[in-house]
Amino acid sequence: MLQSIEARTGAAIGAQWSESTADEITQAAAAAAAANDFFAATSAEHRATLLRALSTALEADRTALVELANRETGLGLPRLNGELDRTTFQLRGFADVLESGTIHSVVDDEAVPGVPPVGRPRLTKVRVPVGPVAMFSASNFPFAFSVLGGDTAAALAAGCPVVVKGHPAHPGLSRQVAALAKRVVAELGLPEGVFGFVQGGSIEVGVQLVQAEPIAAVAFTGSFKGGTALAQIAAERARPIPFYGELGSVNPLVVLPAALEQNGDALAATLANSICLGAGQFCTSPGIILVAKDAASEAFVDAFAHALHALQPHAMLSAPIRATFDRGVARWRADAKLKPLVADAASDTVTPRPFLAEVQAADFIADHMLHEEVFGSAALVVRVASVDETIAVLHAIGGSLTVTLWGAETETEDTRNLVRAATQTAGRVLFAGVPTGVAVTAAQHHGGPYPASTQPFTTSVGYSAVDRFLRPVALQDAPAWLIDRQGVPS
Amino acid sequence: MLQSIEARTGAAIGAQWSESTADEITQAAAAAAAANDFFAATSAEHRATLLRALSTALEADRTALVELANRETGLGLPRLNGELDRTTFQLRGFADVLESGTIHSVVDDEAVPGVPPVGRPRLTKVRVPVGPVAMFSASNFPFAFSVLGGDTAAALAAGCPVVVKGHPAHPGLSRQVAALAKRVVAELGLPEGVFGFVQGGSIEVGVQLVQAEPIAAVAFTGSFKGGTALAQIAAERARPIPFYGELGSVNPLVVLPAALEQNGDALAATLANSICLGAGQFCTSPGIILVAKDAASEAFVDAFAHALHALQPHAMLSAPIRATFDRGVARWRADAKLKPLVADAASDTVTPRPFLAEVQAADFIADHMLHEEVFGSAALVVRVASVDETIAVLHAIGGSLTVTLWGAETETEDTRNLVRAATQTAGRVLFAGVPTGVAVTAAQHHGGPYPASTQPFTTSVGYSAVDRFLRPVALQDAPAWLIDRQGVPS
Repeated sequence: MLQSIEARTGAAIGAQWSESTADEITQAAAAAAAANDFFAATSAEHRATLLRALSTALEADRTALVELANRETGLGLPRLNGELDRTTFQLRGFADVLESGTIHSVVDDEAVPGVPPVGRPRLTKVRVPVGPVAMFSASNFPFAFSVLGGDTAAALAAGCPVVVKGHPAHPGLSRQVAALAKRVVAELGLPEGVFGFVQGGSIEVGVQLVQAEPIAAVAFTGSFKGGTALAQIAAERARPIPFYGELGSVNPLVVLPAALEQNGDALAATLANSICLGAGQFCTSPGIILVAKDAASEAFVDAFAHALHALQPHAMLSAPIRATFDRGVARWRADAKLKPLVADAASDTVTPRPFLAEVQAADFIADHMLHEEVFGSAALVVRVASVDETIAVLHAIGGSLTVTLWGAETETEDTRNLVRAATQTAGRVLFAGVPTGVAVTAAQHHGGPYPASTQPFTTSVGYSAVDRFLRPVALQDAPAWLIDRQGVPS
Repeated sequence: MLQSIEARTGAAIGAQWSESTADEITQAAAAAAAANDFFAATSAEHRATLLRALSTALEADRTALVELANRETGLGLPRLNGELDRTTFQLRGFADVLESGTIHSVVDDEAVPGVPPVGRPRLTKVRVPVGPVAMFSASNFPFAFSVLGGDTAAALAAGCPVVVKGHPAHPGLSRQVAALAKRVVAELGLPEGVFGFVQGGSIEVGVQLVQAEPIAAVAFTGSFKGGTALAQIAAERARPIPFYGELGSVNPLVVLPAALEQNGDALAATLANSICLGAGQFCTSPGIILVAKDAASEAFVDAFAHALHALQPHAMLSAPIRATFDRGVARWRADAKLKPLVADAASDTVTPRPFLAEVQAADFIADHMLHEEVFGSAALVVRVASVDETIAVLHAIGGSLTVTLWGAETETEDTRNLVRAATQTAGRVLFAGVPTGVAVTAAQHHGGPYPASTQPFTTSVGYSAVDRFLRPVALQDAPAWLIDRQGVPS
């Protein structure tokens, strides 16, 4: 059963309702299949109109949606209004990209007379929508990574029908946004299967959706455990399908001594704020802070711990997420290799206390358990004796959505080596600021080596996210009518 | 043990030698890891020089290499000289692409002041070499898909060291080309780990290579069975790595009645020749021919069977490949649903006879075994009563490297629907000619939906093949020195 719950109090909002049945999931996938040929053949302008209409409808219902989101997630009105801004911006952004023509740009190689390898037929490479996409909403962005978030926008932009699985941590909002999307699809006269919606807290709902025969690709943002289980199911289908999973990460942040020469205290405050932002419930929340052992670095760690201690994260998204956070902190608290820096007893049942501990690099590298994300306002300071040890820590972590390098403004052998290690570890490398906050733009890449992403060559944020749903096809000696349809300049 | 064998007689050439030991495989992977940072940091021009030097060295040894290839594969001098042309063309083509700068083009989005979502930091998306690539040579293209074939060229172009596993069907040639590559690498003063080579006929050699810790990606061309087994091993590593497998396909060819109005007999001869080319040992050999039921189509099938009967494929690549072909033909021969059209008894132990049988669409659709490739000069004619039935056959096949549509020159609802079904089924759709022969160009796409490829969004032929080995990374607020290194125009 599904139940809308006040994040701040744990109180029920309204009555329970049933999760989607196996039949309903089958029907949603079948409707997507029925809409598939029609939607794939729509023009870029037609799909841009849909995306703009969805953006407009969200904007029109802003007050009610944000209020419900605030009750169900506890994330606060400023953040949720900002997130809705981002979501509508993203929908309009994909519409702009569609209208610019780049999504359907072709590579057209003219025929060359003669024998191979120089001689060749005409080849025109186009991209075709992969088919119905199963989209798994995240808990932590009730708008931007949920029902009408980036994955849905990218799939619709590509010409793929979407079947969204709403996240059970904000079930009322999910249902309301889904109803809005269905209304817009109907108003535009599109087949209803262009947008489908299923809901459920049980594992079966997700499994059934990934196994549904018409589903051609999966987009997932969520936990490592859930994501790897569903990826396995996608791979074991009679016909395996791509599984684009973004599974969270520890987001190492390297504080080089050069960064502390001017503004160490300000950086300490910035970092503490980033860790407490949204109660640390970001896939890009910095979880591993690499700090040297000189006096300035000692002072930075003190200031950072002091700043973090003074902060109070708000209530977490749901009781299960809070329980997982508490278990992660308890594990760290019990670890004799960790020296607690900010480790108050948990205060009450809804608002968590931040947690920070220090560990030596060698101990960190040796213990795989320490490389795992604790989702929430918790971080480890890893003390490193050298650049080589810093790089060894990054290699031990292996894969992350982001690595941040503070203090790499000057080119030296050290900074070159650190940049190399950072680009091997992450899909985004920052040289200023904090990794929380992911701009929606063409150059964004939100996806990193395992375990951050199941497909680290692809991104789930930014306009390249559409590439996940468009499969290249080379047309050889295509007839004139078909070339004309691809809009190839003659 | 490895043994060079005359394909035409089965006689041994020279003495046996040992396959690579586990230690040697570990050492080859370690050498690649040791070369990794250096090679990743080389300039595009530097790597272009390597590719051109490899091309020149192959050309210099052409006579000896082609002669040995001819003994080990039986493919004949004209084909093998042509294939070597293609291989050197490909190496030089990647060098040209490197020098053009497109491989390292960046997406640079300037910072926008203000709050998100409009405000954003500067983001510069670059691509970094993924790391050491394990490359599995194919049996059927001893040059173009072997030691210095397209996968090796693409990986080296990307800045990734390569560890090649030679194919045991041409072990002597593989060893000789590997020695040539090692010599070129040494002459250019590159670390020896830039090009590694292992060899073996046993499953263990491949498994050990895919499991070797430094390997960051796998490129594979070969059988469905071997490829899916190795893909599973890549996915089960402590850190899973991308597995780019090209596993062969049945390459449906649709003969629409419109194609037969003018030149049915010529098309029948062309098709028969394509099926016997290289004894049918092409991943793009047409294996399923869809033909209607009108009088012209009957005449086409007669002419096609007649033309095929008159042809004699040459010896196959190896005894195991021939044995697999014989088993596949025997399975079809025993199937009561198939009506034999060309089905002579096998003639001698080395040269196979072509095989052709006819089956009704409904029977074909219902029997999954008939959707599997029989590698060699064997094909099925599937008789279709309508365009809808043609589309149903394509959907039943599901995935293929190519689909060929003969007679779709005029736009009608039928041809639109057929093109749609073809693009859903294949990575390349041809409207003239035969699918054997794959041009090396920017617009090529050699990779299709499952079971043709494990990663159908990627190609193993053409210049986009390099994309498999370059992982995107977004640099956020990168310092000036790093931006300069990316060659971003200011």
